[in-house]
Amino acid sequence: MNFEVQKRSFSSAAAHVQRNPAYSVLNSDDVSYFKSILGESGVVQDEDRVAVANMDWMGKYKGSSQLLLLPKSTAEVSKILSYCNSRRLAVVPQGGNTGLVGGSVPVYDEVIISLGGMDKIITFDNVNGILTCEAGCVLENLSSYVENKGFIMPLDLGAKGSCHIGGNISTNAGGLRFIRYGSLHGSVLGLEVVLADGTVLDMLTTLRKDNTGYDLKHLFIGSEGSLGIVTKIAILTPAKLPSTNVAFLSCNDYISCQKLLLAARRSLGEILSAFEFMDRHCINLAMKYLEGVHNPLPVSPYNFYVLIETTGSDESYDKAKLEAFLLRSMEDGLVADGVIAQDISQASNFWRIREGISEASVKVGAVYKYDLSIPVEKLYDIVEEMRSRVGDMGQVLGYGHLGDGNLHLNILSTKYSDKMLAQIEPFVYEWTSKQRGSISAEHGLGLMKAEKIHYSKSSEAVQLMASIKKLLDPNSILNPYKVLPQSVL
Amino acid sequence: MNFEVQKRSFSSAAAHVQRNPAYSVLNSDDVSYFKSILGESGVVQDEDRVAVANMDWMGKYKGSSQLLLLPKSTAEVSKILSYCNSRRLAVVPQGGNTGLVGGSVPVYDEVIISLGGMDKIITFDNVNGILTCEAGCVLENLSSYVENKGFIMPLDLGAKGSCHIGGNISTNAGGLRFIRYGSLHGSVLGLEVVLADGTVLDMLTTLRKDNTGYDLKHLFIGSEGSLGIVTKIAILTPAKLPSTNVAFLSCNDYISCQKLLLAARRSLGEILSAFEFMDRHCINLAMKYLEGVHNPLPVSPYNFYVLIETTGSDESYDKAKLEAFLLRSMEDGLVADGVIAQDISQASNFWRIREGISEASVKVGAVYKYDLSIPVEKLYDIVEEMRSRVGDMGQVLGYGHLGDGNLHLNILSTKYSDKMLAQIEPFVYEWTSKQRGSISAEHGLGLMKAEKIHYSKSSEAVQLMASIKKLLDPNSILNPYKVLPQSVL
Repeated sequence: MNFEVQKRSFSSAAAHVQRNPAYSVLNSDDVSYFKSILGESGVVQDEDRVAVANMDWMGKYKGSSQLLLLPKSTAEVSKILSYCNSRRLAVVPQGGNTGLVGGSVPVYDEVIISLGGMDKIITFDNVNGILTCEAGCVLENLSSYVENKGFIMPLDLGAKGSCHIGGNISTNAGGLRFIRYGSLHGSVLGLEVVLADGTVLDMLTTLRKDNTGYDLKHLFIGSEGSLGIVTKIAILTPAKLPSTNVAFLSCNDYISCQKLLLAARRSLGEILSAFEFMDRHCINLAMKYLEGVHNPLPVSPYNFYVLIETTGSDESYDKAKLEAFLLRSMEDGLVADGVIAQDISQASNFWRIREGISEASVKVGAVYKYDLSIPVEKLYDIVEEMRSRVGDMGQVLGYGHLGDGNLHLNILSTKYSDKMLAQIEPFVYEWTSKQRGSISAEHGLGLMKAEKIHYSKSSEAVQLMASIKKLLDPNSILNPYKVLPQSVL
Repeated sequence: MNFEVQKRSFSSAAAHVQRNPAYSVLNSDDVSYFKSILGESGVVQDEDRVAVANMDWMGKYKGSSQLLLLPKSTAEVSKILSYCNSRRLAVVPQGGNTGLVGGSVPVYDEVIISLGGMDKIITFDNVNGILTCEAGCVLENLSSYVENKGFIMPLDLGAKGSCHIGGNISTNAGGLRFIRYGSLHGSVLGLEVVLADGTVLDMLTTLRKDNTGYDLKHLFIGSEGSLGIVTKIAILTPAKLPSTNVAFLSCNDYISCQKLLLAARRSLGEILSAFEFMDRHCINLAMKYLEGVHNPLPVSPYNFYVLIETTGSDESYDKAKLEAFLLRSMEDGLVADGVIAQDISQASNFWRIREGISEASVKVGAVYKYDLSIPVEKLYDIVEEMRSRVGDMGQVLGYGHLGDGNLHLNILSTKYSDKMLAQIEPFVYEWTSKQRGSISAEHGLGLMKAEKIHYSKSSEAVQLMASIKKLLDPNSILNPYKVLPQSVL
């Protein structure tokens, strides 16, 4: 990653916002105070370590914070925020720093609060499958933990090896199991959150149903750390079913992908657990940049690829069902070619292709990532329109969670340039807005799209969001410059 | 229903709150204004019709409103609220008036706004199963509508023939399909809500995923009409699967019910769609008061009954699976006796028993209804403790959604009495609070439990709820005296 490219990109991203002069500047008394509550090891000033936390993994956003704090408990988070609020020091909460919209790194000199030190599992209810844990737990570790007990996490995503459950909740992560297990608004049962003034809001119940007053936890699911810092989580984990099957299919055109989705919903019904699609540009990229990955289908000019996963309780029945579905879809001309994984290693290879696209895309140099919700029938139109706008300046990829109407549109180039950006924005937002789509299906707004919220939300709604932000964080110390436009705050 | 009983009950229920003198008293100018926007037919002053809207269906709560308004559109609701807000006239939004906690009737002289005139289906997306409709649609009508298109509503409850979808959402109704399709926080995709000052908040998108800013719609799901009036809804409806099977089983003890639940989760897995339990007192009551209902099992001294429903895509496979499960459970001694419905009429009879308990319970005279979330292993303890407290003063029933940890505890008596109430409260709330349970799993707080919220919520959480109430409804005109304690407002 070229540092010049990063800086350049950052400066254009931050061009829209000025540092808010209402915030204090960190001084040595502040650092001493933090050391008094966190100890020496919890207060990081080392330039190299702070530099890593200042920058996102794509090298697209870079802040200039001087301080990284590593609290070990809710009480410590509370003391940090209480102090920062009274001192008007802006902060950015950071989980695994795997976000795609510049939400988890400082914009200017915000104090970075990493939740990485809060990674304990608190309890697991074996009967009901309810996990209670701290926010800094890595998703993949939680997955392994609950799988050993016969359950699975209700979400799964490519970044699982680094992302934190607290970050997943703060960004309302969607991912690969959404089609089966739905949104985190459905599966999160309880939260503990520290508010801007240090108040600890205990909503950490493990009940499936609780209609006593307003369900406040939903405010913190997807508000990107701008209303409070999530410190503990209770989440419902579905039973792990013994039979998983994965098929990798090719389709000649997009209309076949749509028809295949409909057919899968009807025929596979309750065992369907993923329906992911990729265009051939994605596959080519994955083959080129991902180590040890190979195309399961003979190389030929298919335009689209679909990964279907089923999860059920009966191995032989489920497999027969998937085979019958595949056969019928080929007879009906929906599927050009296809293969069902014969073992776990093949299934992992199929998934590695799909999950590795994001990783592969950054290897080209620069990547402009958009994450759109669009009615399924129009979903691929924007990819083709974008391809004709960009021409030979870059490569346009379309992939994503077709079952949820969620397209990941990536435009790859050797470096970030204003010329390229002008070809993409505001076109991509205007187009999506015209379809009444969402300009952020699952990635959030962060710094990248805070000023674009009006493409998907009414002015009344944005105004109410701003009022809620002011109510919960009157000094606006939590994750500033992000999520909401500066003009409404 | 005896009018004296009703009045008596009402006066003890309302004893805790005084009419807020900040509210204006309705005058003839107000009525003229409402007629100017709604026409004569939209403004009801007829004593008999207003009396019906003043009282809940159990005859437990009764207000003294002089006016019932019947808006036909969002614009009319907006005009009503804008006027009432400026005049400081308190209002109560009313759907099907099937609530159990006095939430949908006036406490004093609040203007009643019925949504019954807004009952249009707006669109149905056949591909993705997304229904958009007005708030006044009756749940059962929506069910029939979407079933004709090959989908089902994600919720189902005993009151479906009268309750409105707007009321379901405002109270975050749970019901019989919760175990399979989860909470409305997961299945509601969009809402249109009119705020206290008449602002129309358009959040009526039909996207499965949308992470652009705070997800405000969740504030209105379960806030019992105290933050805004829901006028339109977009909701995800699951595909209707062709095969439904229902079994009616008996267990000798509660521990067997619990073990059966665990076994059903593992063995029936993805096809399990309901797991309801009733004690023998419920069955006896249903047999006595429900017409045309009979016990599917030979009369014998079973202590518990369980209804299990499966829904899947393969009739013969699903039925064989349920039969095998039932056989194994009998062999393991979990089930004493059991029968699988052989046709739709038998299945309906099984369901009629479970759904009719609430209806049957009011026929005795007076019913004290509690709706608790309690860890499954402790769930029946409260029923037995209550039975010994009440003695021969009344009859104690325990039933509910065991799969969700949700107990309906009913105490039946010939009439409401303070002596009986003192045996039940605050014991029931204190006991539940000690188990970190919820004193309202799905019924809401309404008037009945507004002052009891602290048994299930921390003071910090209640304080934040009050701040949000003040932000959205500064004159507190929406559904006053309910949901939150008067002391925090």
